Amino acid sequence: MSEPRKFLLDESEMPTHWYNVVADLPTPPPPPLHPGTHQPVGPDDLAPLFPPELIAQEVTTERWVEIPEAVREVYAQYRPSPLIRARNLEQKLGTPARIYYKYEGVSPAGSHKVNTSVPQAYYNKINGITRLTTETGAGQWGTALSYACALFDMSCEVWQVGASFDTKPQRRTLIETFGGTVHRSPSRMTESGKAFPEDHPGSLGIAISEAVELAAQDPEAKYALGSVLNHVLLHQTVTGEEALKQLAKTGESGADVVIGCAGGGSNFAGIAFPFLREKLAGNQSPRIIAVEPSSCPTLTRGEYRYDFGDTAGLTPLMKMYTLGHDFVPSTIHAGGLRYHGMAPLVSHTVHEGLIEATALHQTECFEAAVEFARTEGIVPAPESSHALAQARREALEAKESGEEKVIVVLLSGHGLLELGAYDQFLSGRLEDDPLSEDDLQAALAGVPEIA
Amino acid sequence: MSEPRKFLLDESEMPTHWYNVVADLPTPPPPPLHPGTHQPVGPDDLAPLFPPELIAQEVTTERWVEIPEAVREVYAQYRPSPLIRARNLEQKLGTPARIYYKYEGVSPAGSHKVNTSVPQAYYNKINGITRLTTETGAGQWGTALSYACALFDMSCEVWQVGASFDTKPQRRTLIETFGGTVHRSPSRMTESGKAFPEDHPGSLGIAISEAVELAAQDPEAKYALGSVLNHVLLHQTVTGEEALKQLAKTGESGADVVIGCAGGGSNFAGIAFPFLREKLAGNQSPRIIAVEPSSCPTLTRGEYRYDFGDTAGLTPLMKMYTLGHDFVPSTIHAGGLRYHGMAPLVSHTVHEGLIEATALHQTECFEAAVEFARTEGIVPAPESSHALAQARREALEAKESGEEKVIVVLLSGHGLLELGAYDQFLSGRLEDDPLSEDDLQAALAGVPEIA
Repeated sequence: MSEPRKFLLDESEMPTHWYNVVADLPTPPPPPLHPGTHQPVGPDDLAPLFPPELIAQEVTTERWVEIPEAVREVYAQYRPSPLIRARNLEQKLGTPARIYYKYEGVSPAGSHKVNTSVPQAYYNKINGITRLTTETGAGQWGTALSYACALFDMSCEVWQVGASFDTKPQRRTLIETFGGTVHRSPSRMTESGKAFPEDHPGSLGIAISEAVELAAQDPEAKYALGSVLNHVLLHQTVTGEEALKQLAKTGESGADVVIGCAGGGSNFAGIAFPFLREKLAGNQSPRIIAVEPSSCPTLTRGEYRYDFGDTAGLTPLMKMYTLGHDFVPSTIHAGGLRYHGMAPLVSHTVHEGLIEATALHQTECFEAAVEFARTEGIVPAPESSHALAQARREALEAKESGEEKVIVVLLSGHGLLELGAYDQFLSGRLEDDPLSEDDLQAALAGVPEIA
Repeated sequence: MSEPRKFLLDESEMPTHWYNVVADLPTPPPPPLHPGTHQPVGPDDLAPLFPPELIAQEVTTERWVEIPEAVREVYAQYRPSPLIRARNLEQKLGTPARIYYKYEGVSPAGSHKVNTSVPQAYYNKINGITRLTTETGAGQWGTALSYACALFDMSCEVWQVGASFDTKPQRRTLIETFGGTVHRSPSRMTESGKAFPEDHPGSLGIAISEAVELAAQDPEAKYALGSVLNHVLLHQTVTGEEALKQLAKTGESGADVVIGCAGGGSNFAGIAFPFLREKLAGNQSPRIIAVEPSSCPTLTRGEYRYDFGDTAGLTPLMKMYTLGHDFVPSTIHAGGLRYHGMAPLVSHTVHEGLIEATALHQTECFEAAVEFARTEGIVPAPESSHALAQARREALEAKESGEEKVIVVLLSGHGLLELGAYDQFLSGRLEDDPLSEDDLQAALAGVPEIA
């Protein structure tokens, strides 16, 4: 056998703690503000929505948070996810770069989202909660939470963004197979939903408002968010911690480039923050790049300001890159990266210049995804294809310069439930739809003025 | 952490050889016969369809066949597939049985089929072949061959059974994403296809005839079969060989029951034959059970006779359990287990009493599959659900008797492209359609009389 392609970890090497980047940041991130008073949010403000352990994780400045044993047992069913050297792809591109992808599609629900749905369900369960509500865009998060609720015998209600609900019945079926219930958003069940016409294509912001509204009304229910918040990003660091150990096993001294796609920011933070720690400590010096779609260019064209996480203004105000909380992204875009904001921690690190951001057109991303499928055998999620397209750019640059770059890319999930988008691409029916300057300015006009 | 759930293998423990059960059978299996002369088929008869290495594997009586290094390298990207103890399912069932499932859904194409598509493409490639033709039923095999052809830079043409083509556009898209071309069968491209009306639902038998006919006409093309033949079963033994080593790591002294679903017989043989060797050698004494659908009950209600592998009678005559080569299974059935015949080696071992067979209704299978998804997090392929339903029966029997049975079940693939069938089941629209006695007798009347 020639050189190995797949790198795993022994049971003794599996991460026992999540990593909290706040402990190592040169400057502290700005606090979230109460939507009414505009004062910093305290734990009590979050109590209607989240159990105490998650609130504690949201505000902690400790570097390490222990992963509960019950969660590690579930992780052990599918983790460590493999780190795989993309030798076939390297050969196809003719690049001297070495490309390693960390593949989260091996999880039960097919994406990285399970890394946080399981602990979120667990902490709610031990607090006596019987019902979780949430939103889902492309469907990955709703699937992951439905699975986690099945494991802990809780009910799960998912508001699926209308445009996604209408075009992806398989996603609804998958959520139902795991035992969850799906509502098209905007629904008629909430005031937040009724503010929009029934046939509105919806948005993540609207769906979040609906799920939050319902959870706040039922003392046995809580809300679960699949991205953006600190505790969600914390749970995702299991991928980066594994990747650091796996990369060490390859014999590489470190990464030169670390790449993830960014919608709400959680899969990106999961791979980025552990590498950022090593960079801040001087152990490695990778460029760390967040890749977003040109149709929803939050980090690259949004403004760094306080804004709501949802459309109805029910969530705390967060300091983040935002396109405006009533931004409704083009339905033409296939990916699930259609959120108006960006995780405050990711926004902060980008604003501080610790992390780069770039935006790509989706046709370039699908081209990279098909090439990846034909060389590495995995059909990437459209979201993940953004990271692959950037990796491809880096690899082709390395080919020009002759540089032996080490590229680490997070492949956040598979695209087996997104084959409709692949069909559109393969038949030439997929178009790019970058955000126009007029639409951008109109959306930004909705961001509240905070003194 | 409590007891581990997932069992893997070190690189040094990976199988280096496929296992040929013929070497250990108490009686030799009957030879295939030429369709015209009814004399035993020689290597020359198979040369138009297969490369020499595969023909040699088809007839060898050697116990072990070395896996080429190029194939082992591809295997290493996704193998070993995990052997997982289904602790959550055991708990749900309240059974003292210990259930281990070997999960082949981790492969690039999502099923065990890659285990043979890769070596088949490889052997054709080194013989200068540039084009492979094949049939596909549920779509798993077409996907696996399309992927393998992409790896070895060959073109791949797939005749997809009409009923499957019409209802599963995602499957076509997936094959195309890997670079293959899909034709609805019966097509207008072959004489075999033209014998049927264009809107005929098709069958595996018809699709095989079409793919064979085209391959025989083009000197640069060969045909690849996804099941039934000895060399295909040989390649699948990599799953059973791994499972034996993995089971040893669990601390179990052996299996009490080994279960696989059976359509053409290849995934079943893959797990069954290595365990059969151990049974014949007196090292373990498992019952080994093939599970088929009641709508296509080849082993349980078919006759053990010489019959053609395809509808047009282009293939050799094989001694096997058959429902008759012009049997067209009910389109109501969701699974891919809709083949009129059964691998001669599997048929022989069943006929000799070495292996058991049973037939189950599909609603019971889907019930078991949904329960499995909600406990173990994997949505099984409808085919694989037959094996799970039988495992569930065995586990519930163990609950009655209090027996601490060790059950090993092959989970041949995931069902993420079969969510339409899950939707039918969850909404109560899925029916059972066992083969009627009249239809059985009519189908059997088509089996040729061989002196």
